[in-house]
Amino acid sequence: MRFSVFIPDNLERPAPVLYHLSGLLCSEQTFIQKSGFQRWASHYRIVVVSPDICPRVIYDVEKHEIEAKGLSCYVNAVKKPWNKNYQMFSYVNEELPNIIQENFNIDKDRQSIMGHSMGGHGALISALKNPGKFLSVSAFAPVCNPSRSPDERLLLECYLGDDPETIEEWDPTCLITKYKGPELNILIHQGKNDKHQRDLKLENFANACKKAGIAASINLEEGYDHGFYFISSFMEQHFHHHSKFLCDSF
Amino acid sequence: MRFSVFIPDNLERPAPVLYHLSGLLCSEQTFIQKSGFQRWASHYRIVVVSPDICPRVIYDVEKHEIEAKGLSCYVNAVKKPWNKNYQMFSYVNEELPNIIQENFNIDKDRQSIMGHSMGGHGALISALKNPGKFLSVSAFAPVCNPSRSPDERLLLECYLGDDPETIEEWDPTCLITKYKGPELNILIHQGKNDKHQRDLKLENFANACKKAGIAASINLEEGYDHGFYFISSFMEQHFHHHSKFLCDSF
Repeated sequence: MRFSVFIPDNLERPAPVLYHLSGLLCSEQTFIQKSGFQRWASHYRIVVVSPDICPRVIYDVEKHEIEAKGLSCYVNAVKKPWNKNYQMFSYVNEELPNIIQENFNIDKDRQSIMGHSMGGHGALISALKNPGKFLSVSAFAPVCNPSRSPDERLLLECYLGDDPETIEEWDPTCLITKYKGPELNILIHQGKNDKHQRDLKLENFANACKKAGIAASINLEEGYDHGFYFISSFMEQHFHHHSKFLCDSF
Repeated sequence: MRFSVFIPDNLERPAPVLYHLSGLLCSEQTFIQKSGFQRWASHYRIVVVSPDICPRVIYDVEKHEIEAKGLSCYVNAVKKPWNKNYQMFSYVNEELPNIIQENFNIDKDRQSIMGHSMGGHGALISALKNPGKFLSVSAFAPVCNPSRSPDERLLLECYLGDDPETIEEWDPTCLITKYKGPELNILIHQGKNDKHQRDLKLENFANACKKAGIAASINLEEGYDHGFYFISSFMEQHFHHHSKFLCDSF
């Protein structure tokens, strides 16, 4: 498994850490080359870890196969053949943080999580299924309600089977109605020109937050789409958000 | 011919313009996706134009052919078959600026130029061969003295033939000894871990500037290589430099 770790200069030790989860077809390289996050990680002195969880060699992009092959999806598979090794929720929430804690001088009590698109889904379910583990969570154009979105549901069914209750256990909009725990400190941005917005279902998540009485900063931005120019434009705001919970000095 | 134009919001009109020239195997896409220049172009309100001059379809990267095919080199070819269409100096210095002036509300008296690697060579020769045309010039790890560098010389000979005097007409270190004109306002950065530094010959250019009594800010940076992390790290300084000559308000 491949992951990137960005360690700013002049770091206080042990340092806070922010996990970043990539979108369905992206890798850690997309994030480190195109988002410009390094400037803000340096400014706020936060260690940033970005895993690539995608078994990329199998997926045939040219055939546009909607199969569970070669996609980044942050669930623990229960359906064969994926159930043996595709335990990505456990990897991102347990195995990887343990590796980071054992090898870098970071503060395990100060960690937050962010992600883009399906990685935004991963960030939200990580925060929702681990109350108190992450001090804050943010997402760019996250998949918010996959059980109500045909394409996203089909994808999750590849790993999870078609039992509705199982699917709902991995759905941020369903999970937030049952959430009990400390403040989640949620920040979300989505572009108004995002061609995936009908699949993302951010409005369902926003309504569920309101009903559950959970505060969330949810922002729709004029003129932006689903891509990396959108992400790099709002990266500073996301780091500023996380810094409020991760860093004493800001 | 393909080029990118970045137009900041809230622009004064007519606006100053900064040209960016890409390296040998890069295109305008590399620059707009990886350099993060947009933040600084917005901040200083400068229109940024980045051409792709590379006849890419012909070059076979896998064979590592060192031929004149598919490379970005900012000279006017005199040797067949390139002399017919490969007039890249004229394209970058005359044809493209005319297209920009005709189609965008820019101030032709406030333009500057920058570039990376072979594009840095292009920026320097553009400033040196057009006294007064560009108010400032900057380069990341530019090719500085190709007539004294075997690989770069071989490349230029593909377009220019092997007459030494002709080659020297396209060599920044040779050109600067003969320069007569207004202040050039040169800024250059190069990484100390740049594996191409023996080919770039920045020290020869620095010495020639000193001998000619021409001021230049030349900076060697510890720990940086030839790549886009280096460029994005110093992009702010380059925009700040150009803004001093392009913008009234900074």
